[in-house]
Amino acid sequence: MKQNINLPPVDIEFRVRYAETDAMGVVHHASYIVYFEEGRGAYTRHYAAPYAELEKSGFILLVTDLSVRYLKAARYDDELIIRTALTSLRSRAVKFEYDVIDKASNDVLVKATSVHICATKNGEVSRLPQWWLDEFRKNENQT
Amino acid sequence: MKQNINLPPVDIEFRVRYAETDAMGVVHHASYIVYFEEGRGAYTRHYAAPYAELEKSGFILLVTDLSVRYLKAARYDDELIIRTALTSLRSRAVKFEYDVIDKASNDVLVKATSVHICATKNGEVSRLPQWWLDEFRKNENQT
Amino acid sequence: MKQNINLPPVDIEFRVRYAETDAMGVVHHASYIVYFEEGRGAYTRHYAAPYAELEKSGFILLVTDLSVRYLKAARYDDELIIRTALTSLRSRAVKFEYDVIDKASNDVLVKATSVHICATKNGEVSRLPQWWLDEFRKNENQT
Amino acid sequence: MKQNINLPPVDIEFRVRYAETDAMGVVHHASYIVYFEEGRGAYTRHYAAPYAELEKSGFILLVTDLSVRYLKAARYDDELIIRTALTSLRSRAVKFEYDVIDKASNDVLVKATSVHICATKNGEVSRLPQWWLDEFRKNENQT
Repeated sequence: MKQNINLPPVDIEFRVRYAETDAMGVVHHASYIVYFEEGRGAYTRHYAAPYAELEKSGFILLVTDLSVRYLKAARYDDELIIRTALTSLRSRAVKFEYDVIDKASNDVLVKATSVHICATKNGEVSRLPQWWLDEFRKNENQT
Repeated sequence: MKQNINLPPVDIEFRVRYAETDAMGVVHHASYIVYFEEGRGAYTRHYAAPYAELEKSGFILLVTDLSVRYLKAARYDDELIIRTALTSLRSRAVKFEYDVIDKASNDVLVKATSVHICATKNGEVSRLPQWWLDEFRKNENQT
Repeated sequence: MKQNINLPPVDIEFRVRYAETDAMGVVHHASYIVYFEEGRGAYTRHYAAPYAELEKSGFILLVTDLSVRYLKAARYDDELIIRTALTSLRSRAVKFEYDVIDKASNDVLVKATSVHICATKNGEVSRLPQWWLDEFRKNENQT
Repeated sequence: MKQNINLPPVDIEFRVRYAETDAMGVVHHASYIVYFEEGRGAYTRHYAAPYAELEKSGFILLVTDLSVRYLKAARYDDELIIRTALTSLRSRAVKFEYDVIDKASNDVLVKATSVHICATKNGEVSRLPQWWLDEFRKNENQT
């Protein structure tokens, strides 16, 4: 999937919650999947609309592929940056890339990508609503 | 709330998942809330019907009160017994009690109660469906 | 347990994560337990020290009691305020109170209390370190 | 990574927990990551030793890569089969493959792979303990 959208990534910052750690003393590897979801939520809020609005308009995004590389561990109370970029925007699917960065050291801890297809609330694959696609393209032209 | 139903408790057993532990090396205290949900799911399945059927018939149970006493910690891979009893069955509300028991030592690790009210899917408080109440009472008479 | 500490509550704000909702379309009742933990983390950071420092100094806080009243549901992307107050500070135990408030409506959604005892990392009940207690008292005198 | 170990997969079965669903009414995509962990826990228990024993002997397995394909959604109370296979066993790393299967329809809902490297508790990459590797090889010869 080639990059066909050109917008700067969006960063969010937060601290690791205690409940997200495990008995190894580090962030459990499944917790990052939730961080990615937060990252793309911030991204679509920034460039188009909150994901909740997409849902209210009758559409959902279903994750179809997820790929994660874990490089270093994070710990409780660490401040993390989730850097999210949209790397493909098509009529029925989008692809995101994520870097999880330790704010103190600037080290990249985790790298990931996810692919999502648009569906109606009944689960039928659908085109993304045009207003939503337009919002991203509008921002692309302004940068 | 007085006990107005008399049915033996229902036990389920499972092992602690790694993701349910935290950096203290023990089961995170929020994980037990999910165990209680599993316990009452098994209970209603045993004496009445799976909770999913209650939902399909248009009703939901909303938790309104939760009270938990943590006595001892559980760890990854420990085998736990969740012992669930229905201690109050009313037309609009039910109350459950739970013991989390370490299978190896038979120690009670956690004790809890929860209260739930019945609502329609729109969130309006409602009487519990009669067929559901009847199932419990039928079992009560047989024991 | 009488209130023996007098410090203003500490508020934190965040949005509900998608992963924290359940098939009823609302925040799962166990997710609030994690919010309370975030609330008391912010509280101790504000008035004494980050909880991570308490752990580094060799002490942990074990939750022994939790009591929750669920009044109204929160949904994905709702902005919540977690208002946390310390209502008892003793040599070996602390008690917190929490209000979860919907930022848009100012409605209180959930009310809760939790009790915690101090232990060493080996799990032996212990006095809280004096420096930690002193920090709270210092702030109390300043307000 | 070529397949260099030949042992039949190990199946475990359980029901979807309510807390694992999200506001779309289906299992949240992060919940499957926990299912995979359960699957490989059952696998190592079956052919070598419980993962807890590996940890007690001073070693941990760190996930370095995770790849997931989501094909169909699961819902609350669905009975799932997690089928886990070890597809690579090396001196410092292992690779697992997972199928999440809907027990009622026999449909494969999710396919995934994960790679893990061995480390000491201090986080230094290490060879896997020989006794652990031997257990798998012993079983391989018997089948």
